[in-house]
Amino acid sequence: MSHEINFTPNTAGVTDPKGFFANGVSADIRRKGNDRLDTGIVFSKTPCAAAGVFTKNRVKAAPVLLCESVLSSSKAIHGIIANSGNANACTGEQGKIDAKAMADQAATACEVAANSFLVCSTGRIGDLLPMDRISPAIAKSGAGIVAGDTDGESFSNCILTSDTRKKTCTATFEVDGKTVTLAGSAKGAGMIQPNMATMLAFITTDIAAESAELKTLLSEAVKHTFNAITVDGDMSTNDTVLVLANGESGVALCDETREAFKEALFLICDNLADKIVADGERITKVVELLISGADTEAGAESIARCIGNSLLVKTSWFGNDPNWGRLMDALGYADSEFDPERIDISYGEVPALVSGTPIPENKPKWKEVVSAKRFTIHINMHAGEANYRLRASDLTEGYVDFNKSE
Amino acid sequence: MSHEINFTPNTAGVTDPKGFFANGVSADIRRKGNDRLDTGIVFSKTPCAAAGVFTKNRVKAAPVLLCESVLSSSKAIHGIIANSGNANACTGEQGKIDAKAMADQAATACEVAANSFLVCSTGRIGDLLPMDRISPAIAKSGAGIVAGDTDGESFSNCILTSDTRKKTCTATFEVDGKTVTLAGSAKGAGMIQPNMATMLAFITTDIAAESAELKTLLSEAVKHTFNAITVDGDMSTNDTVLVLANGESGVALCDETREAFKEALFLICDNLADKIVADGERITKVVELLISGADTEAGAESIARCIGNSLLVKTSWFGNDPNWGRLMDALGYADSEFDPERIDISYGEVPALVSGTPIPENKPKWKEVVSAKRFTIHINMHAGEANYRLRASDLTEGYVDFNKSE
Repeated sequence: MSHEINFTPNTAGVTDPKGFFANGVSADIRRKGNDRLDTGIVFSKTPCAAAGVFTKNRVKAAPVLLCESVLSSSKAIHGIIANSGNANACTGEQGKIDAKAMADQAATACEVAANSFLVCSTGRIGDLLPMDRISPAIAKSGAGIVAGDTDGESFSNCILTSDTRKKTCTATFEVDGKTVTLAGSAKGAGMIQPNMATMLAFITTDIAAESAELKTLLSEAVKHTFNAITVDGDMSTNDTVLVLANGESGVALCDETREAFKEALFLICDNLADKIVADGERITKVVELLISGADTEAGAESIARCIGNSLLVKTSWFGNDPNWGRLMDALGYADSEFDPERIDISYGEVPALVSGTPIPENKPKWKEVVSAKRFTIHINMHAGEANYRLRASDLTEGYVDFNKSE
Repeated sequence: MSHEINFTPNTAGVTDPKGFFANGVSADIRRKGNDRLDTGIVFSKTPCAAAGVFTKNRVKAAPVLLCESVLSSSKAIHGIIANSGNANACTGEQGKIDAKAMADQAATACEVAANSFLVCSTGRIGDLLPMDRISPAIAKSGAGIVAGDTDGESFSNCILTSDTRKKTCTATFEVDGKTVTLAGSAKGAGMIQPNMATMLAFITTDIAAESAELKTLLSEAVKHTFNAITVDGDMSTNDTVLVLANGESGVALCDETREAFKEALFLICDNLADKIVADGERITKVVELLISGADTEAGAESIARCIGNSLLVKTSWFGNDPNWGRLMDALGYADSEFDPERIDISYGEVPALVSGTPIPENKPKWKEVVSAKRFTIHINMHAGEANYRLRASDLTEGYVDFNKSE
């Protein structure tokens, strides 16, 4: 039995599934003296099954280590406490103490047991959290939740760093007259080439599920969405995707609903991943690289990443220059076996190279394709059956200017 | 017995060793209607032993394939014909025919046997060579050589693309009253992260040597010089280092002279590699990354390359920002085993991180170090005994502007 998925981008986000509350408040973490939202809670009174996928960076931030520990020891998760402006990474023992304090304070404020909160931080690496300002903010956020106030939008805003807009979406499907809802909120912007996770993404759902199955389905969805994007090739210390399932829809994840849930979860992850690339720091273009006919999937991925991370390729996109020579150079150092003289490349539907031979008369059309804000490059390696899709951005003078100092 | 090496940067280059002639002429390859030098010959009437190290890119330019073939079949090399402005890469069968024609025409012009010339091209990928303009230029260059004219400087200039200055150096040492000379000319600028070779570098010497031993010594020298630099992380289709040895010094490469020759060859390669980074496209800084105490040499190299190719690290250098958090993030995704809490980092001699703990009171001094045009970052992983040195550049808005279209 197939279920129709109803997908909506740019929603309130994590508060859409039944029984989830959230808000965002200001702790003035960046000490700018303004009221910019930077601290927030996602909460479910009904305890949730939960799963997470985290950065593979060997330098892991304290909240990542804490989440891994909580997820392995606790079966009843009530929420997530998150902050932006400070990553709590490379902060030694004090960083671990602070991450644990954030979880405990959030649990206390929301009147649930300790060890039921996950913690996520994002922002500058290497500074201790200003706990003197964060603790009262957590108390304020929790008090709002207990009072029944909820504001998905303020939560989705409080996790942003150099993002220019919030990133949310919601999917629903019907089972026997009951509605199952999944929703997500994410942040991205810089240090974006996730491995097994992305910057921060929070997904809530009111389906009833076991943590182990959630983990399996989340890992599958993440592989081809959050893990298949690049802005600048840098994998962060804090990359985290979390999913919380509280069961309040009255529908269980089972043989009948699994395909619909998988599809809805994929759509949520895919839309948030796309939004992260499209809002990459000062980028101007999103380029979908579709590699086909590669020797292996790892080879196809390597080709896509060599191209999507090549500075010369990315700067040529920025300049509306359909420079297929730079594509060929970049794929030539990928970890994949192929014959350069069999490769086909097309910009959108316009062939640029067929069997390694250029079609220069198409050049005006390539140029038109590359001048768009979004376009696709198809590369058929004719070396096997494997495919890979990577969404990449261009590289701009604005990116360099933005990142030359913090 | 040790021999003192006399090293001089910024010399005439490849014409310094006895019996080598060279010049550069204009074929107007870029069709700008100007007299920019773009085609040239290096020549020795005495046949040379020769060795080369080439790009590991799977997409190899036609002249790279030709050089590999000539070096494997010919024992008597008389010279090199080189051009800039067009890489003769991704040019199919016609590209191979053109590369062979360049070699044959150069041999004819210099009045030596066919199959005695090596060919190197550098410049734009994907366009056929304008042989109608290159052939007369080769004839002119060869006629000059036969007439005994020689001009190392014009040759060193004719191979440049986006380089802003020629790159040459010379080393000599004495053996029993005889002088052995080695000299090199190189070009670099963009698409610089060589693997087993660099863009183009030509080394001549008047020592007498076997090709096989030259190859061994060249490979060793290249590994820690041309192969240990990065500007933009892109490995080109044309990377080539060639050495020609004509024996005219009357000194042979043997047990007595090997150490001196190795040292001189290393100094030549090291100086040219440094010049290539320092003249990277619109870069402003050269940063020497010294990784020590890594688990393995491959691990140390991976750490250095993750840092040296991180866009966020490179932009922070451009902004004079001693952002050690970005260094920690980048080394965290290197392929190396270590404990983040044992790492020491210092900028120049100023500690920034000791056993994973920052020394914030030194920040003004880090800032001073990073503000210089050249500085060193020492990173001790405390995970083993392996070391690696990488020379990297910063990433600037000028680089993006320069490369956004060709």
